[in-house]
Amino acid sequence: MAGELPVTTLAEPRAAPDAALIADAAARLAGVVRRTPLLSSDFLDALAGRRVLVKAECLQHTGSFKFRGGFAAVSALSAAERARGVLAWSSGNHAQGVALAARMHGVRAVIVMPADAPQTKIEATRALGAELVLHDRATEPREEIGAALIARHGLTLIRPFDDPQVIAGQASTGLELAQQAAEDGVHSADVLIPCGGGGLTAGVALALAETVPGLRVRPVEPQGFDDTARSLAAGQRLSNDARMGLCDAIVTPTPGALTFPVLQRLCGPGLVVPDDHTLRAMAQAFARLKLVIEPGGAVALAAALFQPQALQGDAVIVIASGGNVDRSRFIQALSTED
Amino acid sequence: MAGELPVTTLAEPRAAPDAALIADAAARLAGVVRRTPLLSSDFLDALAGRRVLVKAECLQHTGSFKFRGGFAAVSALSAAERARGVLAWSSGNHAQGVALAARMHGVRAVIVMPADAPQTKIEATRALGAELVLHDRATEPREEIGAALIARHGLTLIRPFDDPQVIAGQASTGLELAQQAAEDGVHSADVLIPCGGGGLTAGVALALAETVPGLRVRPVEPQGFDDTARSLAAGQRLSNDARMGLCDAIVTPTPGALTFPVLQRLCGPGLVVPDDHTLRAMAQAFARLKLVIEPGGAVALAAALFQPQALQGDAVIVIASGGNVDRSRFIQALSTED
Repeated sequence: MAGELPVTTLAEPRAAPDAALIADAAARLAGVVRRTPLLSSDFLDALAGRRVLVKAECLQHTGSFKFRGGFAAVSALSAAERARGVLAWSSGNHAQGVALAARMHGVRAVIVMPADAPQTKIEATRALGAELVLHDRATEPREEIGAALIARHGLTLIRPFDDPQVIAGQASTGLELAQQAAEDGVHSADVLIPCGGGGLTAGVALALAETVPGLRVRPVEPQGFDDTARSLAAGQRLSNDARMGLCDAIVTPTPGALTFPVLQRLCGPGLVVPDDHTLRAMAQAFARLKLVIEPGGAVALAAALFQPQALQGDAVIVIASGGNVDRSRFIQALSTED
Repeated sequence: MAGELPVTTLAEPRAAPDAALIADAAARLAGVVRRTPLLSSDFLDALAGRRVLVKAECLQHTGSFKFRGGFAAVSALSAAERARGVLAWSSGNHAQGVALAARMHGVRAVIVMPADAPQTKIEATRALGAELVLHDRATEPREEIGAALIARHGLTLIRPFDDPQVIAGQASTGLELAQQAAEDGVHSADVLIPCGGGGLTAGVALALAETVPGLRVRPVEPQGFDDTARSLAAGQRLSNDARMGLCDAIVTPTPGALTFPVLQRLCGPGLVVPDDHTLRAMAQAFARLKLVIEPGGAVALAAALFQPQALQGDAVIVIASGGNVDRSRFIQALSTED
């Protein structure tokens, strides 16, 4: 199968986006993405012992920040590429982000998803007009399936994080955040970001480094999936052993080739959160912010609320990166003790 | 006790706000209230058979639109009135809205609450710095307790809806809505509003009548608490028999003296929603909007989704007026069938 691949398609990605690429993506996204609110609650401030500002990306189209990167990537395609279509692999949020972005451009989207992905995510992606290719993740690697489809149909791969346009799209979250923090009088704070492959983390770090250097990005991961925190400490990309956990959106095994150097250059130390703190953070967001946050989107809030000693300054900014969570999981979170 | 009352304090309220009062309130609220987003979802559109735009007032400070009216009223007080303090009676959202507004102005707030109000609402109001006077609602009418406190301490009463400044504050929701609907290309639609005493409904109706006459306000109530719908149909203020239900925020027994003439003049027919539709609407808002909406805040969305034949036009606008709901009630909503 690999022999059928156009050499360029699955090659290592090129380079992290520069300021011009980020500004161009932001211009294409203007009026398309939601400018999600920066929320707060006196109760959360009291719990954390400092001001807590929460960027509610769970309110973004498709329920996560992934729509930003998907739209940036699809809108950057040439006319010829658009005519052939795009391909993504994902079991969740990236799938929906690419699917909606493709539909908005009238572009064919083929999404390779594991057959055992949550039924709600499969249905949501299909409802957005994507063609689904379901595979058995034990026996059929998604990269091989994707490469074959790309070779056969001339599709353009949209990677979930190691793609300059995708990172540039996620960076728009940081540009908004910089404005909103300034409006709230916050010019110096840790910015905690749920981190899987590092696309959002790298994008926001690049955006803030340009605009508000006093805002320092720190990646947050679940216990057992702390590849980024360990990699930052070790100075090289390390991997996790585990493959699936509560925080399904951010269990990526290793930092991205393109994102990791950005994180090394711009981010503070990673934070690692136990699952019971994540569930309690979801319950706090329910009670105090009226937001539905999925486990993988709640780890940054969990760190802000329950690891105050690991942070610096009078304020902390948190990205709530997604809200695509099953009812049963949310009920579990609401059933935890305070 | 009534003999101790200053005559003006509990007299019938004066008149609905005019355009100037609404504009003044909006100017005082600018930069203070959250400009809550107008959200949507393709899935809700498909369910309703038309575009559904949801104004997420559950994301407002204190978790409901009531902060707008509370702030408008407190900020309109004279220096002498501020020095003496304010009084409100409420078992929930109005209490928190007034408490926060008073704290922001350095004004004493005394809130008369029933002793059997939900513990979370009592604690939230106290945490906002208000002095609570708990009473037994079976034997101690809140109006008598409030009147005695007003007489003794010179407090200014802030009514939950029959107050020109409160209505003017709620009207700011309508001014934002008018702008946001225009940005989304909607100039003609029914605007469905959860309706208790009618403060939000009257305020938004006044704001829209001035700015976007194509947007027609319609009050929405729970079954068994349809005093406004029946009053509009009968041309006179009628009352409910029942006193408490699922939608605790909007079980006011009768339309306001000041709000009802506004509703008669500007609103379309009322809509009435069964509780099982309200619970299903809460589950849809969870899944599709990532919002926590309380039962009383979800009746308008319920009407939009499950009574499409009662509406006109290609789009419907809905206000999700609050999100202060107990965990157990929310779990109940998530446990309903689709």
